[in-house]
Amino acid sequence: MTATVIKYHRVMSRWEPNARGRLEAAALELYVERGFEQTTVAQIAERAGLTERTFFRYYADKREVLFPGSSALEDLLAAKIAAAPADAAPIEAVGSALEAAGAALQHRHESARARFHVIAENPELRERELIKLAALASALAGALRERGVPELAANLAAEAGIAAFKIGVRRWAGQADEQDLTLLIRNSLDELRSVTAGK
Amino acid sequence: MTATVIKYHRVMSRWEPNARGRLEAAALELYVERGFEQTTVAQIAERAGLTERTFFRYYADKREVLFPGSSALEDLLAAKIAAAPADAAPIEAVGSALEAAGAALQHRHESARARFHVIAENPELRERELIKLAALASALAGALRERGVPELAANLAAEAGIAAFKIGVRRWAGQADEQDLTLLIRNSLDELRSVTAGK
Repeated sequence: MTATVIKYHRVMSRWEPNARGRLEAAALELYVERGFEQTTVAQIAERAGLTERTFFRYYADKREVLFPGSSALEDLLAAKIAAAPADAAPIEAVGSALEAAGAALQHRHESARARFHVIAENPELRERELIKLAALASALAGALRERGVPELAANLAAEAGIAAFKIGVRRWAGQADEQDLTLLIRNSLDELRSVTAGK
Repeated sequence: MTATVIKYHRVMSRWEPNARGRLEAAALELYVERGFEQTTVAQIAERAGLTERTFFRYYADKREVLFPGSSALEDLLAAKIAAAPADAAPIEAVGSALEAAGAALQHRHESARARFHVIAENPELRERELIKLAALASALAGALRERGVPELAANLAAEAGIAAFKIGVRRWAGQADEQDLTLLIRNSLDELRSVTAGK
């Protein structure tokens, strides 16, 4: 426990190289310490050594700061779908894209774990997380349609894939020891295939 | 179009037999006419011939009134899962439960169509809809676990089933002609199976 606290502290202290990263780290730190509801944007800015104005240059509200890189993740998923072999089935393309997303998130385990607990305790944050996941599904579905996959199949492959991804990420973020996220996502996708096959 | 408007009017006029139904109908009518953002609880109560106080006896906020019967739907899904044959695979039990939910919603096509457009235009409402769907998935997963289905399989069958359900309901609600919702849900589940099998 003490080791974890020290590690958080190191990851989140002020000498982050950029304003965005400093605000994210400060927000997460305060949400863990005081709770999301009790934390103000002014406090986040102060902790980061920045102004409220700077905060609002990067984030629309107190919730957004908990979902950094979500549009980059959408772009990554779409690019991976576009780059999948021409003969890959939609679910295979989706699986590779989601595993690549897992690899990209792996180094963030420590902050993912803190986020997991903050989000779990706040209904507003759970709503925001769901809309971010829906945006990821939408990016996948759009990229599949561009490959000529019919709309219904594209939407289902995307939504089912994101369901497996969400479950993999939650298992990863919910555990103290850092497991291989790509592997957890792959396991989750395998289980999805097995379950929908009626096993 | 005129026929539709007349039908809305008939469905939503004041002689609904109960306060809850009158508030729902009044809210939907106003959201369609003026937009969700522009409508106040006072206006909804007035249109329903009731007081604001009565509104808040039934609904926590302006958003909740758009999701009537969602806890009844959770109960229905859990009951159907519990009643599925002992040897039914998790995805089969989920499929029957979701088709039963479709049958229960069929008579609400007219209001579902209005809701569909109101929700599509408002990000806050899309978030609320996602949390309601997550609650349905959670009810399904819980009922599956009570049948002894392991947690990962239960969560995936529930989440994938709800993804198919959501897509079926959206196709149904998005169309002017009233199609058979149960059939659309079944098609969506069939396509899910086909897609996850790598077709």
